[in-house]
Amino acid sequence: MTLLINPHRFKDDFDALAQIGSTGDGGLNRPALSEAHLEARRWFLARAKEAGLETHVDGAGNHSAILQSPISNARTLLLGSHTDSVPDGGRFDGALGVVAALEVLRTVKDAGVTLPVHLEAIDFTDEEGTLVGVLGSQALAGQLTMAALKSPRGGRANLEEGMRRAGLSDEGFLNARRDPESLAGYLELHIEQGPRLVQSGIKIGVVTGIVGITSYRLTYHGQANHAGTTPMETRADASLGASTFLLTAREMVLRDYPNCVVNVGQMNFKPGAFNIIPGVAELALEFRSPEEAQLAELEKSLLGLADVIGRQFGLTLTAERAGGCDPAPMSPRAQAAIAAAAESLALSHTALHSGAGHDAQSLAALTEAGMIFIPSRDGISHSPLEFSEWEDCVNGANVLLRAALKIAGE
Amino acid sequence: MTLLINPHRFKDDFDALAQIGSTGDGGLNRPALSEAHLEARRWFLARAKEAGLETHVDGAGNHSAILQSPISNARTLLLGSHTDSVPDGGRFDGALGVVAALEVLRTVKDAGVTLPVHLEAIDFTDEEGTLVGVLGSQALAGQLTMAALKSPRGGRANLEEGMRRAGLSDEGFLNARRDPESLAGYLELHIEQGPRLVQSGIKIGVVTGIVGITSYRLTYHGQANHAGTTPMETRADASLGASTFLLTAREMVLRDYPNCVVNVGQMNFKPGAFNIIPGVAELALEFRSPEEAQLAELEKSLLGLADVIGRQFGLTLTAERAGGCDPAPMSPRAQAAIAAAAESLALSHTALHSGAGHDAQSLAALTEAGMIFIPSRDGISHSPLEFSEWEDCVNGANVLLRAALKIAGE
Repeated sequence: MTLLINPHRFKDDFDALAQIGSTGDGGLNRPALSEAHLEARRWFLARAKEAGLETHVDGAGNHSAILQSPISNARTLLLGSHTDSVPDGGRFDGALGVVAALEVLRTVKDAGVTLPVHLEAIDFTDEEGTLVGVLGSQALAGQLTMAALKSPRGGRANLEEGMRRAGLSDEGFLNARRDPESLAGYLELHIEQGPRLVQSGIKIGVVTGIVGITSYRLTYHGQANHAGTTPMETRADASLGASTFLLTAREMVLRDYPNCVVNVGQMNFKPGAFNIIPGVAELALEFRSPEEAQLAELEKSLLGLADVIGRQFGLTLTAERAGGCDPAPMSPRAQAAIAAAAESLALSHTALHSGAGHDAQSLAALTEAGMIFIPSRDGISHSPLEFSEWEDCVNGANVLLRAALKIAGE
Repeated sequence: MTLLINPHRFKDDFDALAQIGSTGDGGLNRPALSEAHLEARRWFLARAKEAGLETHVDGAGNHSAILQSPISNARTLLLGSHTDSVPDGGRFDGALGVVAALEVLRTVKDAGVTLPVHLEAIDFTDEEGTLVGVLGSQALAGQLTMAALKSPRGGRANLEEGMRRAGLSDEGFLNARRDPESLAGYLELHIEQGPRLVQSGIKIGVVTGIVGITSYRLTYHGQANHAGTTPMETRADASLGASTFLLTAREMVLRDYPNCVVNVGQMNFKPGAFNIIPGVAELALEFRSPEEAQLAELEKSLLGLADVIGRQFGLTLTAERAGGCDPAPMSPRAQAAIAAAAESLALSHTALHSGAGHDAQSLAALTEAGMIFIPSRDGISHSPLEFSEWEDCVNGANVLLRAALKIAGE
């Protein structure tokens, strides 16, 4: 089959969706379950119905357009992403994948092609985490817990307000799990949110996996003291351990873990006055690796480094794990289908991992999942400056179409 | 004259004063103008009256015991310190100097010695700065401004509450200035609050000056970004500048300014999340030097270093001055009198500067001021663990007595 999506219809829909919650500067403000987000989802269902597709909303608020297969007990191939944004985010992150999925269904339907699988374009609830994070896809994968719903990062009150607005319930979320046997796979088109494709001039990224993330709250304990009368040489200054760790951890990752990243996103000294030597220094540490064994090894290296540095400065160290998620490898079959689709379109492609989290990481636990990246200008995202060339968006949608057809036909 | 103070009376008074506001662990809680502090001051005046001394309270709430000279137009030699403490502080800091001054007056009176100067033992208001800091001595030196009273570091509401409790007014504070012509000098006995005397085994510190302090709020500006997708090499991570500056500033001071100290008491990153590269890093910087020219040179070196480090990491720097005070050299005549007094008692002595602020720094602008330090265990102060051997306290009081007699007789 040599189908291609309709780039004009695709563009009109992308632009129409970008108007909902627009901030007027190219960006948009469409946090999960906000009024603007719900309007975007109504728009999505309306466009699906206009195209003669079935629609469905599950207990997690995931919104779907469905192109039924004539085979009644067929499995479902999911294509999707999300329409929610971070506050004052960009118009490509998530929305591109949802509109592209809808366009793929319309293209297949218009061509009169019948497939041995149902095609479902799905808009997952709260990928960005203004409420919980990958909420709808976690629910669909059966990984969501009541505990996560009870203490969401965005606050329970905000979650409840959004649920009320959208007519959702805790029970609905917890019962949204799909049977893996009912699924044929999952494909997601997304902007890269990093500079690798745009810097290398390669058109399509075949995602090999989504990084695992581990976070720690590290605390160095020294001795708070008078900053005027305590000699420099005899201080047990917790700030020295914290600063040395920050710099040395970066050097270690650059040298020994070139495919990983590390970040100290916050640092705080106590008591915290100009004239008192820091007795306590707290660090918010996060690191990522695409491989489970490597993530564990990196954790060991970083904690070992933190400990050695503490001893060096006469400090004691406490390390408290502050969450994380496992690496999610993408399905080799999905990767092969995406690479073949790119080749059928004469598009250059490269294998790369995703440094950011996506709904595909939830789906990887449930079914064969794959992700397609397209170039993202300067790697900027979560900003009104987020931008991808329209030609790249069309390329991505065509790769999504052809990879879906390939998986459907296998 | 070979007078010596009465060590038992001195000890009884010291212990009695330490009971007022005692926290039961050797420390005390006697913040300026608190109920406990006012009780301590009433006790001080009562003890002075019992000894047949005159008493006086000025518009700044400074409490004095006075031994009049028979010469009616004599100048006044002030001996003093403060009875307020930091919250949960120690029982030596300040109180020792006030009780010793009272003991000196009683010793001179009991010996029937008449002097060509009035002797005044003075307890200055709010040296520690729970309200303003060196408040009473600044008022006496005519250096207090209405602006300082209107926005005190402890908050105007707390200051007003204390003033109400003590029956003080803004006008009283601003009119408490003494005529320099009326003064013959100022001497203060204080614990070192640092480890130099105790480590060297020297009994008496002859203070050469009180350090000047300069504070800055430094801010590095980089680019906040996604901690997962932004390659390590291409980040404009403000935390790198802040941490490198903290470590390098310390090395520079240790190497090039061995008689100075530097402290980064607080550090804060923005936006401040685990998963966001710090776009902004703020530092609370403070540095001290006993010499005015050196303090200015150190300021230039540190700001230059901060700037170079910023460029190194692709960051911009803003530096905002956040206060400070000039170095206060002690009077050479007072230093000579203190050294001679120590020698007359066969006590080892050494010249050293004070890394902490004291009321003597206010007085240095007004009259010839001198300070006597005695050893302080482990250099600890502002803590219930603050401790000096009683023998050292007695030595200090005798040096205060003899230095006062020397200055009075010159």
